[in-house]
Amino acid sequence: MIGVGGSGSSLRAWIISIGSELLVGRVVNTNASWLARRLTFMGFTVDRIIVVPDVVSDIVEEVKRGLGRVRLIVSTGGLGPTHDDVTMEAMAVAIGKPLVLNREAELLLREFYSKKGLPLTRERLKMAYMPEGCRALRNPVGSAPGCAVTHNETILIMLPGVPEEMEAMFESEVTAILSPITPQVAIVECYSQIKGVPEASIAPLLRELSKRHLNAYIKSHPKGYILEKPVIEIRVLVAGSVGEEALSSAKQILEHIISEAVKLGGSSDVEVGCQTTG
Amino acid sequence: MIGVGGSGSSLRAWIISIGSELLVGRVVNTNASWLARRLTFMGFTVDRIIVVPDVVSDIVEEVKRGLGRVRLIVSTGGLGPTHDDVTMEAMAVAIGKPLVLNREAELLLREFYSKKGLPLTRERLKMAYMPEGCRALRNPVGSAPGCAVTHNETILIMLPGVPEEMEAMFESEVTAILSPITPQVAIVECYSQIKGVPEASIAPLLRELSKRHLNAYIKSHPKGYILEKPVIEIRVLVAGSVGEEALSSAKQILEHIISEAVKLGGSSDVEVGCQTTG
Repeated sequence: MIGVGGSGSSLRAWIISIGSELLVGRVVNTNASWLARRLTFMGFTVDRIIVVPDVVSDIVEEVKRGLGRVRLIVSTGGLGPTHDDVTMEAMAVAIGKPLVLNREAELLLREFYSKKGLPLTRERLKMAYMPEGCRALRNPVGSAPGCAVTHNETILIMLPGVPEEMEAMFESEVTAILSPITPQVAIVECYSQIKGVPEASIAPLLRELSKRHLNAYIKSHPKGYILEKPVIEIRVLVAGSVGEEALSSAKQILEHIISEAVKLGGSSDVEVGCQTTG
Repeated sequence: MIGVGGSGSSLRAWIISIGSELLVGRVVNTNASWLARRLTFMGFTVDRIIVVPDVVSDIVEEVKRGLGRVRLIVSTGGLGPTHDDVTMEAMAVAIGKPLVLNREAELLLREFYSKKGLPLTRERLKMAYMPEGCRALRNPVGSAPGCAVTHNETILIMLPGVPEEMEAMFESEVTAILSPITPQVAIVECYSQIKGVPEASIAPLLRELSKRHLNAYIKSHPKGYILEKPVIEIRVLVAGSVGEEALSSAKQILEHIISEAVKLGGSSDVEVGCQTTG
């Protein structure tokens, strides 16, 4: 089983979210939950999500705490062209490297702006200045490139703050960087239907099971009514390093839910189906 | 002006969110953004949101970092009856106090469960064990009481993780505890309508203004079409320690938006209206 394994896991990760808009509550940090879920399913144990303002000293403080302590630090935000985008500067300070013009990043920016018929101004070129040693990450959706750099056993990944850009860059660039160090993970999804029990009656059980099985995602979807009886679809998703274990765990959780639903007066006509990916 | 004032502010606050479900990405941390917004509007500068697992040593580490450094630490989560609810235990360690049975909390729990006709079991009574010196906070919605305790100039507030319980406890108990140390804050909201400019065309300007005025909330709501022209309502909310300043700032931002909309071919027939609260 993978997932939240406590501090025993060697694949610990931190997520550092950079942006004052998060600290005044204007923006909900969906980037962090997206990344946390994605990293967990890749085999990492995320044990901190830290939100810091766009202030160099604050970013440096938190990154330094993580260096050497966790295998991976992913940051989001602060890569844009304006003066309050200070992530690259802060990362350079944190790892003790100079901020230099990254040629790959410059090429990516030239390509991006020439396609748009826009000049590569000084402000825009600022986005190509990165800590020395950075591998520039292409932004498939927007302008700002990301960076991947390793320092003392810790991989540092800097991603943009715009959710679509962050997600696209993660999928197209970051997964390949991380795959050599992550275990083969199988993801199993089992599903069935329950009839005759309202969703609210089964919700406490699902919550309890979710809390108990941290590597499982348990979801219910109301599917309408058959002969005035509510029908709920139940889906249980489990990630595991061993496919058979994940499969048996997902099945077991789902069968437990069904048996509890039967105790509550429900029934299940639909056989449990399962599929495995990854 | 209040709000994000950088580290110059004496009213710095941290939010510590406790719960492994946040670190596996199953739950989006809306509690933190709700609190961040609420605290910002009360005059605090939130400069960290930290998510930690339900592990005593992790919670202790983060709370200790904040003690003496910030005026306020608000935690959410980990107050329930199960063995993985360890917030009170961790807080006691962090401030060097024993975990004791809090009589107020015990009374609150007795009252809650007797109303429900349920016994106060040992597991439930666990929720009344708090760091010595805690003022118990009534939970208007659920069972687990919160705690407020001061240690070395830092006020520590522990709230439940269920959003409705957290918000209700904050409004009914916490605002009164914090009001003696927070400035009088006026909240001004100005609003108008723009006709003939699609929301997407005005969005970049609103984003830029939001970034520039961190104590302002700028929102647009599409209100349909008049004679095939899109109508957008614009609302600008500004918090300030001086009411007149907040009012003039909100007006200025809104008038700037309207003048930019006119440049984009739009118009505004509706006079700017403003109202002040607080």
